[in-house]
Amino acid sequence: MKALSSSLIPHHYRLSSSHSKSKQLKPNPQLLVFPIRASVLPLKPIVVVGSANADIYLEIPRLPNPGETITASTGHTLAGGKGANQACCGGKLAHPTYFLGQVGVDGHGRLIEEALEEGDVMIDGMRKVDGVPTGHAVVMLMDGGENSIVVVGGANMQNWPESLGVDDIDVLRNAGIVLLQREIPDWVNIQVAETAKNAGVPVILDVGGRDEPIPNQLLKQIDILSPNETELARLTGMPTETPSEISQAVSVLHDMGVKQVLVKLGAKGSVLFVEGEEEIWQPVIEASKVVDTTGAGDTFTAAFAVALVEGKTRNECLKFAAAAASLCVQVKGAIPSMPERDSVIKLLLCHS
Amino acid sequence: MKALSSSLIPHHYRLSSSHSKSKQLKPNPQLLVFPIRASVLPLKPIVVVGSANADIYLEIPRLPNPGETITASTGHTLAGGKGANQACCGGKLAHPTYFLGQVGVDGHGRLIEEALEEGDVMIDGMRKVDGVPTGHAVVMLMDGGENSIVVVGGANMQNWPESLGVDDIDVLRNAGIVLLQREIPDWVNIQVAETAKNAGVPVILDVGGRDEPIPNQLLKQIDILSPNETELARLTGMPTETPSEISQAVSVLHDMGVKQVLVKLGAKGSVLFVEGEEEIWQPVIEASKVVDTTGAGDTFTAAFAVALVEGKTRNECLKFAAAAASLCVQVKGAIPSMPERDSVIKLLLCHS
Repeated sequence: MKALSSSLIPHHYRLSSSHSKSKQLKPNPQLLVFPIRASVLPLKPIVVVGSANADIYLEIPRLPNPGETITASTGHTLAGGKGANQACCGGKLAHPTYFLGQVGVDGHGRLIEEALEEGDVMIDGMRKVDGVPTGHAVVMLMDGGENSIVVVGGANMQNWPESLGVDDIDVLRNAGIVLLQREIPDWVNIQVAETAKNAGVPVILDVGGRDEPIPNQLLKQIDILSPNETELARLTGMPTETPSEISQAVSVLHDMGVKQVLVKLGAKGSVLFVEGEEEIWQPVIEASKVVDTTGAGDTFTAAFAVALVEGKTRNECLKFAAAAASLCVQVKGAIPSMPERDSVIKLLLCHS
Repeated sequence: MKALSSSLIPHHYRLSSSHSKSKQLKPNPQLLVFPIRASVLPLKPIVVVGSANADIYLEIPRLPNPGETITASTGHTLAGGKGANQACCGGKLAHPTYFLGQVGVDGHGRLIEEALEEGDVMIDGMRKVDGVPTGHAVVMLMDGGENSIVVVGGANMQNWPESLGVDDIDVLRNAGIVLLQREIPDWVNIQVAETAKNAGVPVILDVGGRDEPIPNQLLKQIDILSPNETELARLTGMPTETPSEISQAVSVLHDMGVKQVLVKLGAKGSVLFVEGEEEIWQPVIEASKVVDTTGAGDTFTAAFAVALVEGKTRNECLKFAAAAASLCVQVKGAIPSMPERDSVIKLLLCHS
């Protein structure tokens, strides 16, 4: 792997040059006491518009039969949803981050509110809607390792206002970048993307969340489309097993008007395609242990966005995202596993 | 059905004698503005010790296969658990009611806290325990009408203190009656029942919650055992299809030392067996519509306890419980369907 460009590290994180040029770079305890809030930087915020879910995990020996009651060995409920995940990632990476989304007036909504607040996400624009539950998903983890999931769209999918409010528009226009996914209605995403686009704010669409074609009205507002391997295959109807297959599938997306495609390949790394330029491949930064990959894709996309809005090069953005994802997979859960900025910086230093 | 004894109606609910002897008794709008809080009465409280759950209902076309994600048409999460249900029933029937139980420090715990408070239940003795989730159950309601349920015991089953606290003992000793079920550990129920018994406080054990033999140490402290038909069959290993089969099964329980058995028979009503006396059969009070029977058994047991502690005759207790259960099945959910006292009184007046 190439040496880490020092420009990837915001000024207040940089080690002294005598440190950064050392060959024996080790995690430096001093890093832990560095100021890590980016709100002091003159940075434009990330605005994530999307879903917020209560993810209810149940560990069960097997699925129950119809009419049967079984006992889970354990269960726990965590805040999640691709929108809230990506917002928390931005906040934990100490970049000013807004979340615009909807929850119901219920316990699951409060759980999400607390998680976002703990993640240093600004949630003034999160709506609490009556008469519809907070979105939730029951994730049944079976002994063999397989999962079955039941999703309730709830406030993520229903009771959206017909048009964006003045405050939302204001937040979007002043954003450094807007992050979307596909767990809220397409027509809401279209309004958001159009508002951002008209204000010259770049928009990333993470393809995850709904296995349906992306409306052209949405696609044409997107600056960077980010599918994983499977989503790329579904979107294009093409195979995506090999690098050349991936390139061919992406060229179909270019033909559909998408200039930049950020493909997440799991253990195989990631690759950024910019139309008319050579693609950039980024291998994974190996994790010492892979505990749980939940939220790794969301972490990757959000960390990429953070680096991008902070003015990093494409190479640097990919590396930063790979480091964040590597840390994410070493901890259980989605939001609990999202790394602080100093951990990402340390990992990058150790791998440079 | 026989005429309702006026002693079933606490003084402040009674209509004038000219009304109560009228043949054209109709629900009286005046009843709605009568004082309905029983806390002004010199009544000993009901103390419910038991489970509190978040019940997560999902409406799904079918169960997911392993590895599959499906979308629920809707979902909602309600406070439940047999202990919290029975406590809410006592509170809503305007009898002073304590709940002793455990929840985790999480959103589901707060949901339960709010439901109990709204139900006018005193929850000073409810413990919030760290490191274990609030008990929860995922109820998957399928299109064909069948349910599959996954239960997480959580704080209902774990982290109980080794012995009862001074405050708990005080509450139990001053109770008019103690209500138990089987969704917390048997050894906790045994401690509670012994404490109540030693103070001369009667104990009802609702058999619902766990399909295991009842330890003799618990059984011998119980004044009234309340199984439904199925539970009676399981407890005794005997058939319970016909009235004579039910009587024979109950005689086995009498032989095991249980003097009073209150059997709930669903649409077939209920029957109270007191050893050495003639049993009392109580038919259901027909509901105009049966929407959801969830919580009907808990409502029946708790309403019976309320009437009993208020000094009603056994016949009156059974009628009061039947009326409460009849109102319960007409509304969706468990706690949301539990009737206020005035509704029960009105129903009894209309049926007398």
